[in-house]
Amino acid sequence: IRFYLHDQFNGSNPTTAIVLPPRNNETLFGQVAIFDDKLTTESSINSKPVGRAKGFLVIDSLSKSSSLQSMTVELEGRKGTIVLHGQNPFTESQREIAVVGGTGEFRNVQGYALTSTTGAEPGGFIAIYEVHL
Amino acid sequence: IRFYLHDQFNGSNPTTAIVLPPRNNETLFGQVAIFDDKLTTESSINSKPVGRAKGFLVIDSLSKSSSLQSMTVELEGRKGTIVLHGQNPFTESQREIAVVGGTGEFRNVQGYALTSTTGAEPGGFIAIYEVHL
Amino acid sequence: IRFYLHDQFNGSNPTTAIVLPPRNNETLFGQVAIFDDKLTTESSINSKPVGRAKGFLVIDSLSKSSSLQSMTVELEGRKGTIVLHGQNPFTESQREIAVVGGTGEFRNVQGYALTSTTGAEPGGFIAIYEVHL
Repeated sequence: IRFYLHDQFNGSNPTTAIVLPPRNNETLFGQVAIFDDKLTTESSINSKPVGRAKGFLVIDSLSKSSSLQSMTVELEGRKGTIVLHGQNPFTESQREIAVVGGTGEFRNVQGYALTSTTGAEPGGFIAIYEVHL
Repeated sequence: IRFYLHDQFNGSNPTTAIVLPPRNNETLFGQVAIFDDKLTTESSINSKPVGRAKGFLVIDSLSKSSSLQSMTVELEGRKGTIVLHGQNPFTESQREIAVVGGTGEFRNVQGYALTSTTGAEPGGFIAIYEVHL
Repeated sequence: IRFYLHDQFNGSNPTTAIVLPPRNNETLFGQVAIFDDKLTTESSINSKPVGRAKGFLVIDSLSKSSSLQSMTVELEGRKGTIVLHGQNPFTESQREIAVVGGTGEFRNVQGYALTSTTGAEPGGFIAIYEVHL
């Protein structure tokens, strides 16, 4: 399973809200955000939509930018959700987040998601996710 | 495993606290609540208590009311807890939340919980949970 | 896997930040903290560092002090992280937290961590963790 996630935290139609501010300005430790991000088949936000990733992230590192990211992925044409929950050191080129469960078609799954930031776009950043169950 | 959960967010003795306010009024996106809810054998809050469900929920949907709900269930007479973590679109009639682990008797469990709101009561709402491990 | 965790919430160099205040003063229900805690081989904070535990905790009990604790453990010399997520009734002598997944070397793990508070130190508390995968 492969998709592009659009983390739109700026602009006219943000899908991410910062609900708690950071405690320091270097790593943003303490910041909490909630999101309902669009997923697409290709890198462009205007490519075919394939689902949503909903959840929250807690920036929890004092040494580099990293967040504990918890989100459920729902995909068009698939019944149920995949639950990702793990550390995402988002300034590293390649990251891995644990898949800890799922519902519907994805009951009892485990696995991992590989993710990297592929670029910026107006309002935010684009990341690719490859989910291995 | 089957129980009724009493989400008491109003009234004189609430078991749920809203700790962060919503960012919009349609879906309540951005709201965060923490709870320690009573579980009973039957729908009535005065029926036999069977445990507590403790955790938090993050309302994370821009399109409908839904929360990423994370909670541990402790049951009277059972040693340990069951950990539920997943999306709960609470206005749908039937929802499914992933079981991602457990402790004590419930070490290494996976599975799912089916839940639906069965009614209102003074102070809040009642939901039935059927946990399949 | 065994380590000591140093929860430094006071002092000149805290590794834990309280980001939301409690709603009551008996159990601290409603308090949320984010942490990036040092892990060491022995009880002393000056013993050999072996990694970090990053995450958050939500105090979610009305009857005793307990938190839903979500954290990832990274260990020096090991590639990847272990994800712990569960209830930690931190005033009890021995607690158990579920291991719900992992990444890298720890892909697809499940299990549990036994933890107890072993003492206080300037700035905070020391807890031992024994992780069983």
